[in-house]
Amino acid sequence: MAYKDEQLREEKVFKDPVHRYIHVKDRVIWDLIGAMEFQRLRRIKQLGTSFFTFHGAEHSRFNHSLGVYEIVRRILANFEGKPYWNPNERLLCLAAALLHDLGHGPFSHSFEKVFKLDHEDFTKKIIVGDTEINHILRRVEPDFPQKVAEVINKTYHDKLVVSLISSQIDADRMDYLQRDAYFTGVSYGHFDMERILRVMRPVDDQVVIKSSGMHAVEDYIMSRYQMYWQVYFHPVSRSAEVILSKILHRVKDLYLSGYTFRFQPIHFLSFFEGEVSLQDYIRLDEPIVSYYFQAWTDESDEILSDLCVRFTNRKLFKYVEFNPNAQMEEWMVLHRLFEQVGMDPKYYLVVDSSSDLPYDFYRPGEEGERLPIYLQKPNNELEELSRTSDIVESISGKKRTDHKLYFPSDFIEALSDDQPEKKQIMDLLGIARN
Amino acid sequence: MAYKDEQLREEKVFKDPVHRYIHVKDRVIWDLIGAMEFQRLRRIKQLGTSFFTFHGAEHSRFNHSLGVYEIVRRILANFEGKPYWNPNERLLCLAAALLHDLGHGPFSHSFEKVFKLDHEDFTKKIIVGDTEINHILRRVEPDFPQKVAEVINKTYHDKLVVSLISSQIDADRMDYLQRDAYFTGVSYGHFDMERILRVMRPVDDQVVIKSSGMHAVEDYIMSRYQMYWQVYFHPVSRSAEVILSKILHRVKDLYLSGYTFRFQPIHFLSFFEGEVSLQDYIRLDEPIVSYYFQAWTDESDEILSDLCVRFTNRKLFKYVEFNPNAQMEEWMVLHRLFEQVGMDPKYYLVVDSSSDLPYDFYRPGEEGERLPIYLQKPNNELEELSRTSDIVESISGKKRTDHKLYFPSDFIEALSDDQPEKKQIMDLLGIARN
Amino acid sequence: MAYKDEQLREEKVFKDPVHRYIHVKDRVIWDLIGAMEFQRLRRIKQLGTSFFTFHGAEHSRFNHSLGVYEIVRRILANFEGKPYWNPNERLLCLAAALLHDLGHGPFSHSFEKVFKLDHEDFTKKIIVGDTEINHILRRVEPDFPQKVAEVINKTYHDKLVVSLISSQIDADRMDYLQRDAYFTGVSYGHFDMERILRVMRPVDDQVVIKSSGMHAVEDYIMSRYQMYWQVYFHPVSRSAEVILSKILHRVKDLYLSGYTFRFQPIHFLSFFEGEVSLQDYIRLDEPIVSYYFQAWTDESDEILSDLCVRFTNRKLFKYVEFNPNAQMEEWMVLHRLFEQVGMDPKYYLVVDSSSDLPYDFYRPGEEGERLPIYLQKPNNELEELSRTSDIVESISGKKRTDHKLYFPSDFIEALSDDQPEKKQIMDLLGIARN
Amino acid sequence: MAYKDEQLREEKVFKDPVHRYIHVKDRVIWDLIGAMEFQRLRRIKQLGTSFFTFHGAEHSRFNHSLGVYEIVRRILANFEGKPYWNPNERLLCLAAALLHDLGHGPFSHSFEKVFKLDHEDFTKKIIVGDTEINHILRRVEPDFPQKVAEVINKTYHDKLVVSLISSQIDADRMDYLQRDAYFTGVSYGHFDMERILRVMRPVDDQVVIKSSGMHAVEDYIMSRYQMYWQVYFHPVSRSAEVILSKILHRVKDLYLSGYTFRFQPIHFLSFFEGEVSLQDYIRLDEPIVSYYFQAWTDESDEILSDLCVRFTNRKLFKYVEFNPNAQMEEWMVLHRLFEQVGMDPKYYLVVDSSSDLPYDFYRPGEEGERLPIYLQKPNNELEELSRTSDIVESISGKKRTDHKLYFPSDFIEALSDDQPEKKQIMDLLGIARN
Repeated sequence: MAYKDEQLREEKVFKDPVHRYIHVKDRVIWDLIGAMEFQRLRRIKQLGTSFFTFHGAEHSRFNHSLGVYEIVRRILANFEGKPYWNPNERLLCLAAALLHDLGHGPFSHSFEKVFKLDHEDFTKKIIVGDTEINHILRRVEPDFPQKVAEVINKTYHDKLVVSLISSQIDADRMDYLQRDAYFTGVSYGHFDMERILRVMRPVDDQVVIKSSGMHAVEDYIMSRYQMYWQVYFHPVSRSAEVILSKILHRVKDLYLSGYTFRFQPIHFLSFFEGEVSLQDYIRLDEPIVSYYFQAWTDESDEILSDLCVRFTNRKLFKYVEFNPNAQMEEWMVLHRLFEQVGMDPKYYLVVDSSSDLPYDFYRPGEEGERLPIYLQKPNNELEELSRTSDIVESISGKKRTDHKLYFPSDFIEALSDDQPEKKQIMDLLGIARN
Repeated sequence: MAYKDEQLREEKVFKDPVHRYIHVKDRVIWDLIGAMEFQRLRRIKQLGTSFFTFHGAEHSRFNHSLGVYEIVRRILANFEGKPYWNPNERLLCLAAALLHDLGHGPFSHSFEKVFKLDHEDFTKKIIVGDTEINHILRRVEPDFPQKVAEVINKTYHDKLVVSLISSQIDADRMDYLQRDAYFTGVSYGHFDMERILRVMRPVDDQVVIKSSGMHAVEDYIMSRYQMYWQVYFHPVSRSAEVILSKILHRVKDLYLSGYTFRFQPIHFLSFFEGEVSLQDYIRLDEPIVSYYFQAWTDESDEILSDLCVRFTNRKLFKYVEFNPNAQMEEWMVLHRLFEQVGMDPKYYLVVDSSSDLPYDFYRPGEEGERLPIYLQKPNNELEELSRTSDIVESISGKKRTDHKLYFPSDFIEALSDDQPEKKQIMDLLGIARN
Repeated sequence: MAYKDEQLREEKVFKDPVHRYIHVKDRVIWDLIGAMEFQRLRRIKQLGTSFFTFHGAEHSRFNHSLGVYEIVRRILANFEGKPYWNPNERLLCLAAALLHDLGHGPFSHSFEKVFKLDHEDFTKKIIVGDTEINHILRRVEPDFPQKVAEVINKTYHDKLVVSLISSQIDADRMDYLQRDAYFTGVSYGHFDMERILRVMRPVDDQVVIKSSGMHAVEDYIMSRYQMYWQVYFHPVSRSAEVILSKILHRVKDLYLSGYTFRFQPIHFLSFFEGEVSLQDYIRLDEPIVSYYFQAWTDESDEILSDLCVRFTNRKLFKYVEFNPNAQMEEWMVLHRLFEQVGMDPKYYLVVDSSSDLPYDFYRPGEEGERLPIYLQKPNNELEELSRTSDIVESISGKKRTDHKLYFPSDFIEALSDDQPEKKQIMDLLGIARN
Repeated sequence: MAYKDEQLREEKVFKDPVHRYIHVKDRVIWDLIGAMEFQRLRRIKQLGTSFFTFHGAEHSRFNHSLGVYEIVRRILANFEGKPYWNPNERLLCLAAALLHDLGHGPFSHSFEKVFKLDHEDFTKKIIVGDTEINHILRRVEPDFPQKVAEVINKTYHDKLVVSLISSQIDADRMDYLQRDAYFTGVSYGHFDMERILRVMRPVDDQVVIKSSGMHAVEDYIMSRYQMYWQVYFHPVSRSAEVILSKILHRVKDLYLSGYTFRFQPIHFLSFFEGEVSLQDYIRLDEPIVSYYFQAWTDESDEILSDLCVRFTNRKLFKYVEFNPNAQMEEWMVLHRLFEQVGMDPKYYLVVDSSSDLPYDFYRPGEEGERLPIYLQKPNNELEELSRTSDIVESISGKKRTDHKLYFPSDFIEALSDDQPEKKQIMDLLGIARN
């Protein structure tokens, strides 16, 4: 029997707290899960620094990747025998679902910004490069790795396949909303996925939703909205993210300026130099980062050492609401005051902004462009969701941005009361005196 | 106001998936949570290697410690104003609950066995040594650290206080059963804790259960029984544990024999030499261990390198049921065959045994001795649980042991079919040929 | 000890699937629950005809009333010692919460419309009339019944007390949304009540919400919106409601026209004559109605008999979307056609409309006027919810109406194909031919 | 297409709180659900008088019957293509599952005992008699009603089919344990049904369980044990049951003795005379019973009137532990004392006993004989569950009986303190004086 058709003698079942069970029958999927590049995802947290705010959020991308696979598996079980659906694309969908996050590194968001990387590039490189994953995929057929990469990259010709993994209501989002809600323990993030799966229909090159399922989809959109503001953009997690970025900046600056490290950043060298090989990238997981951060708490550079202590022991920055446009002058004053008291504002006075677009029906030309959600009416006409749903319409395409200013309040409070800047800073930042 | 009585201006609340919310009002508790030795528990998994079997089991001891604190907080809220209960012991109970696992290191079980350590010793050392935790506790009163250590060590004079943390139905067990069930996703581990808390009564120097709550306690005992056999002793997790132990053994042996490491085991040196300082101990968390294991995949020693690849990429040993007493001869034959084909049986043919005592009403003189559970009848008489409950009686004091033999089936299958030992080994281990 | 201060020797606890446990410590509350007028609520379903659509929705108003009491009890436990809160109002709040629905009869909505009754009047009458409830309340103090009635009637002088029972986010709504979601099994209706209770604050004469809880309140508003459209206004339940109303109309018409009943509507006589005594009202519960409907399936009047068969055996009317304003002409044609084939359109061609106002910040002068929800900002300023929340703003004060036309499709299909009206009716109603 | 193969154009889906969704695709099943005899099950509570103890337990047998159908549907979906399984039995299994409780009347237990009826007889009569159900079944094939009746009666030749509905781990029990737990809100009653369904295998003429699922089955057995003692045999529900039985006895005695009822027991006449027609039986649902009980509160017979007030308004009997064998003398004294003070002991001093056999591996010759549970080991050998499981063994075949004595404590307390019997009765019954 061809490798691509091989079935396990006995179905393998993973106990999953979100989907109850994850079922694997295909030999290819089983082998992919066992590959070292996939196992590596156990060492990357799904929610980066969110565990500092929600202590339950310690789950890994391994978890999530299995979940996305399982959702696609269930969708396809419903699609069997339906028009428009080509059953030969099944294994491709499952593999793409499983592997879509393969290129994520530790705290991807910060690493990507500081080192100008793109985890999607690395997903592709792992799939087409010389890896265990690639060897497995090639056994299916020589151009199977390329196809999987195209699906994940949204360039695959069959857009129906693409839309299962990447759309406004794809398996990726359905898994992470539920999973992140489960592990953080928040009461948002729940919606009736079973119903949504049942009202999904393949129509031409997209997945549409029978209009009788509109309310379940509204509920999903609202869950997403709540999760963004309650969990993903939580200011405490962002505080840890700010510190993390500043550590990376500092260590890079120190390296480039010839600083002598007590503890050499061996795993980071190619990152500093902008020449990250696939092997170096794969090696850098969260335990490695944690190891260095702990080690650097002993560095002689006070800023690096302080920031690493903060991240390791959760001595985070405090924050206030801050509008960088309206409060530019205030910011400049603070900047100067911080310099005067010896707190480098580059590292200790940081503006961070979050934004989200809860549901976009149309955002042409942007990189993150997502396919809109179409409802299929009883007469088979399609209608874009926000035209039918008041609630969705009310939040469609509305970008909401939240700016905060982060700073070390412990340092400020530790300043001598004789220093005139202390009072000024505290007043400007609204820090209360005891 | 005295430090010990200080209350936070606004109650702090942690979102917890198991207890919904964890409430902190005491300044002392808040400070303890912020201490670096407590934050370190975020870097120690609650269930060691279980995440290899149950991918959701990635939660840390930090999680669990907060949970135990919260349960004790709720119990004490019920105890307020009850006879026998001394409200002055409140803060002591809360601190002991929070800190009871402070001395756990990474994969404690294996580390303790290989390096002859005891995490309870380290819990004590962290509490009475020169640590952030100790400084906070001393602010309460000079001998407060000592008291906390005694409660955790079960030597404190007020046994009522001790029994909240260490008994057959203490806050520790109630939290971990529920928490581990939640994160693994298994359907066991649930019981009606709210009811149990409501029927707990302080009587003399112990906590007893009103007999109307007997069925809830039975349910708790059964949960515990199920969790042991379904989760804690799962043979796949034990396979990873076996490999972990063998890595530690190997690296220690190599070090003692003067092997030249490509990658120096700096963090381990004092462990090899049996002189582990408090600082060295605290530093060794799971990311550090993970870092070394990944690094050692490149060591020239083939056994060390192979075992580290296995642990890092989850290429675990397979297992068969094995009774070391009844099958001694078989085991000797296998031992010899393994040597003949060049697989060192010390590392590649491992017997592992698990046992549990689900409920012990009386086990005098043993180190793990636990207080039995007493039911309080309507006439206030006390009766030990197993005398009333058939179900509990049926499993009381019955030690059940499960032996398994672990081995690398991939190596065996990779042997040449020409080697006569291959067939013999496969037959003895019951490995099927394709 | 005064009756109003009497506490039960041992707290009574009800197992409740929604709030886990309902706690009763006050003798007065315990006695009220035991009163026959309160026990009667076991014989009135919370959701009327919804069980025809959601088979789980068989729960009674007894359930719900206990739940509202429990929520108020928890709110007041949080209010203890807070400014603005007068602890002397505690028992009044609890009693009003427990008794707020006391005057509901079977299928109140239909009965009220057909017989021009008002359940709120009867709530008041039961509280101030010669009933077990009244005797208990009078033992608290002579004017206690009057006070309880005023709180329920929203005329009590202390508006803070009123707002606990009747506002946009009162205990009534918080209970029924969760309870109805639980029993129907729909996945809407969940929100984080524990958090909402924690952010509720008494301020002057109202309950406000700390602004940090805004998202939990948004979630509650959305739950409400979803429950209205998914459950409360479900067209199948409304079909049963339509039939129920028509039965009541028919039986009243028959009675007034001197029809000789095989089975006398003794319990209904005072309803027909518009002179319903308190005793008659209390007696009429759902089993009684069910008894008559079953009996009347044998009446010689064909319309009454048919409608009773339909209700008893769930042979409901089918429905189509119908806009009574735009489709007036169509309706008149149908009316005539129904008459021609002998189906009295008064009973067999029924327009029914539903509407809901998910969140009203201001609806002056209307009977159902509800207090808006205010958020309390960190600086203690109050702001009305819809000014802060985009989502709530999007649905504020927007009345959405849904019209449907109900008819007996089985009768129509049973018409002879030779009758020209058959095809016309089927075309107009969009009934497909086999 | 043959009626038996007809599929609905669109699958019908019921929202179910226990199984999430219940799926119906077969026209036959859809028609059966719509039949008046099946709809009647909405008017029979699943748990009889338990709602007096657990206010949530108001769910009907209609609910449960759909649930049993759904479980069998899922089991059969897993059986598809498996050896031993004959797919031609599918519809038979589904119909038998749906209809297995069809003959239940109101509060069956009491009615059966008082009037010497057997609900299983009536299930059969409804299936083979002149009913809507029968007409539907006959359209499948002429002897289909007979087959369905045989499956429910356990006499059908294919024991595999029988065992799905009636065995120690059948769909009936799996549904009611979960459903009753859900509606009462107790935390027992949960087990991992999804796993049990996955490890069920047809082998010869029975359903066996793969031994890897043993712990899930243990958990199910324990759930059952807990539900029996916590819910099904709860003494408060039994108190209501005692009163109910006494009402039926009283009204029958009155009728037979020629008493003139103010309110004629028309629906009961054939019950009194032991000649219950199918039509009379079907008509008698719980609303009818409730109607009479309310009416009889006004009867001149004081015992009947009092008992009906008690049942209607939940003024139940109190109880004490009582061993009828050991305490015979005490009982005789009480009997005499009750007579002396004018409380007829036949109605006011009632011993009631409960017993359960949580798991029986062998009970030959008894009417309720149930097939044992067999585990299938990896080598395909079968082993009876209690031989493998210590826990199950500990409760196998152990009949536990619980005796209680019920009496009206309000009457006793209302006796004059001058009556010497009062003190004697109170002492014997252990009623405390205020």
